[in-house]
Amino acid sequence: SRSIRLAVIPGDGIGQEVVAQGLKVLSAVLPQDVKLETREYDLGARRWHATGETLPDAELESLKEHDALLLGAIGDPSVPSGVLERGLLLKLRFAFDHYVNLRPSKLFPNTPTPLAGRPDIDFVVVREGTEGPYTGNGGSLRTGTPAEVATEVSLNTAYGVERVVRDAYERANARPRKKLTLVHKNNVLIYAGHLWKNIFDRVGAEYPDVTTDYLHVDAATIFFVTQPERFDVIVTDNLFGDIITDLAAAVTGGIGLAASGNINPTGAFPSMFEPVHGSAPDIAGTGKADPTATVLSVALLLRHLGYEAQAARVETAVADDLATRNGAARTTDEIGDALVIRVTN
Amino acid sequence: SRSIRLAVIPGDGIGQEVVAQGLKVLSAVLPQDVKLETREYDLGARRWHATGETLPDAELESLKEHDALLLGAIGDPSVPSGVLERGLLLKLRFAFDHYVNLRPSKLFPNTPTPLAGRPDIDFVVVREGTEGPYTGNGGSLRTGTPAEVATEVSLNTAYGVERVVRDAYERANARPRKKLTLVHKNNVLIYAGHLWKNIFDRVGAEYPDVTTDYLHVDAATIFFVTQPERFDVIVTDNLFGDIITDLAAAVTGGIGLAASGNINPTGAFPSMFEPVHGSAPDIAGTGKADPTATVLSVALLLRHLGYEAQAARVETAVADDLATRNGAARTTDEIGDALVIRVTN
Ligand SMILES: CC(C)[C@H](C(=O)O)[C@@H](O)C(=O)O
Ligand SMILES: CC(C)[C@H](C(=O)O)[C@@H](O)C(=O)O
Repeated sequence: SRSIRLAVIPGDGIGQEVVAQGLKVLSAVLPQDVKLETREYDLGARRWHATGETLPDAELESLKEHDALLLGAIGDPSVPSGVLERGLLLKLRFAFDHYVNLRPSKLFPNTPTPLAGRPDIDFVVVREGTEGPYTGNGGSLRTGTPAEVATEVSLNTAYGVERVVRDAYERANARPRKKLTLVHKNNVLIYAGHLWKNIFDRVGAEYPDVTTDYLHVDAATIFFVTQPERFDVIVTDNLFGDIITDLAAAVTGGIGLAASGNINPTGAFPSMFEPVHGSAPDIAGTGKADPTATVLSVALLLRHLGYEAQAARVETAVADDLATRNGAARTTDEIGDALVIRVTN
Repeated sequence: SRSIRLAVIPGDGIGQEVVAQGLKVLSAVLPQDVKLETREYDLGARRWHATGETLPDAELESLKEHDALLLGAIGDPSVPSGVLERGLLLKLRFAFDHYVNLRPSKLFPNTPTPLAGRPDIDFVVVREGTEGPYTGNGGSLRTGTPAEVATEVSLNTAYGVERVVRDAYERANARPRKKLTLVHKNNVLIYAGHLWKNIFDRVGAEYPDVTTDYLHVDAATIFFVTQPERFDVIVTDNLFGDIITDLAAAVTGGIGLAASGNINPTGAFPSMFEPVHGSAPDIAGTGKADPTATVLSVALLLRHLGYEAQAARVETAVADDLATRNGAARTTDEIGDALVIRVTN
């Protein structure tokens, strides 16, 4: 009989609440013969305050012994900015070589959007997850003095760029519209930009059916609000991907709905699935958190592990639920329950 | 009698056309006793193709001998990406120490916006203009091979950050709402981010009437489309400022309306005024370019040179013209003419 060994990191704020709903839906949708073994990890602000630890080596090793990770949210105002982000979330992405940070954006019918005219939005961003300005390569000199100099180095390698660009071409090639857009800023960041553009063009020659496009990141943000229907698959660097996927979430119903997968396509390490939103400490414990982004992240998890039918079922359940939302406020738990009923019927 | 020595760089694509309208309006609005001396510089794609030059030293020296610069647009698909941007536009911003890149965003009544509900938008972005990832500090190793490594270094100094942050506080303090938001990404770019945040907090102590806020750049893009009315003055780094001001333009009528000033507040070098839009080679020569962004940049130029009443007059003319636009297409020239009539009446 089959099994899924799932590591669960609820994390901070609303993380616990939304992860609970994700797990409910996951258990409900899995075939009877699949054994779901979960192990919860106490990582995040509480742990840091108690022990000073963000992600001890022993825990990192133990996390490796899983088929996938489900993460709620990391971050709390009581912890200095950067400590948990770099020491836990980014540490996981880098240690497990999550070079494909997959972030689909779809505007479901009936879902509110700040855009007039409700454009047809259905694209996926393939954000590089292990390089760029996220490597932590930087420093400061004469810190805190009027003579301070602080640097941040964006590191980009042909190795790192080619593998994620290739993944994006594969995804574009498998979609009906077969269109791939590279987003960068190669008129200013000429070294990294030219590396990206050259590899994008070279790998593109192997995918003659894929239509390609290039946009500077500033121009891309314009099209996200004026013409989002032009996008199918987007590939971009770590920082640009961070920025544009929040904007993408905003125009497709908000970050309460935005799912993501931190994927290691080689299978060398477990992939990690998490909502794009943060820990939202202001609404933690109030039952106001929308667990939909986590549930959609569970769908990505299912697809990654080969449970395509179950993934589709979760996505249909969410689409149906969104279609019947009428503005009446439901609690985190109520939304989770409604989705459980839908996936089991 | 007074005079303005203005250097004019029409540049590429629609640059020539929109600058012509800007100059028409400028001549029309200036008091009779002010002598306007313009000198045009042939810089951009044509020059580069003809001579290989982007901005020769002699021309840079000669540009210095002016009270201000008016620039149309730089860039052409026939020139490799980065050559004119780095060799001309950014060279000017850096050589003339334009550390305040001022970009106001206002949604005028009747102006189209992609946002439903037409929120109240009236903010100004103070984008740092001489540091960050724009310094050209980077390189590539084993270029073009599978072992290539490319870097981009973001350079940030207390000197550079403090002066622009101080300028932003001054601007916020002079506005009715007195609110200043710092946009950065200090949970990931911890060295540069902490430098910015520490200086932002320290200088803030000198401005007790200014309310402050901090947003990560990804979250800021969300608020630009869901709650833009929350912004009054924003201060941010060179790259984040580039990205969010294009988005800001998109939600306030498009880049056809977005003005900017590259300002050296000390007066050591002439400041440069330019529309935020690019050279739009696809519509160059068709008369379809909207010169409004250039005309609004002329208003910023007038204000910078102390002609406040004339600046206000140009802005009122644009606001009135926008209020009566009824979707009927007018040529570049017709819009310029209409604005000339308004500023002279
Ligand atoms: C919390 C932060 C480090 C993270 C990022 O910048 O990647 C988040 O914004 C995201 O998009 O997952
Ligand atoms: C053309 C380019 C170098 C420039 C920039 O990135 O600053 C432009 O996008 C702008 O915003 O003025």
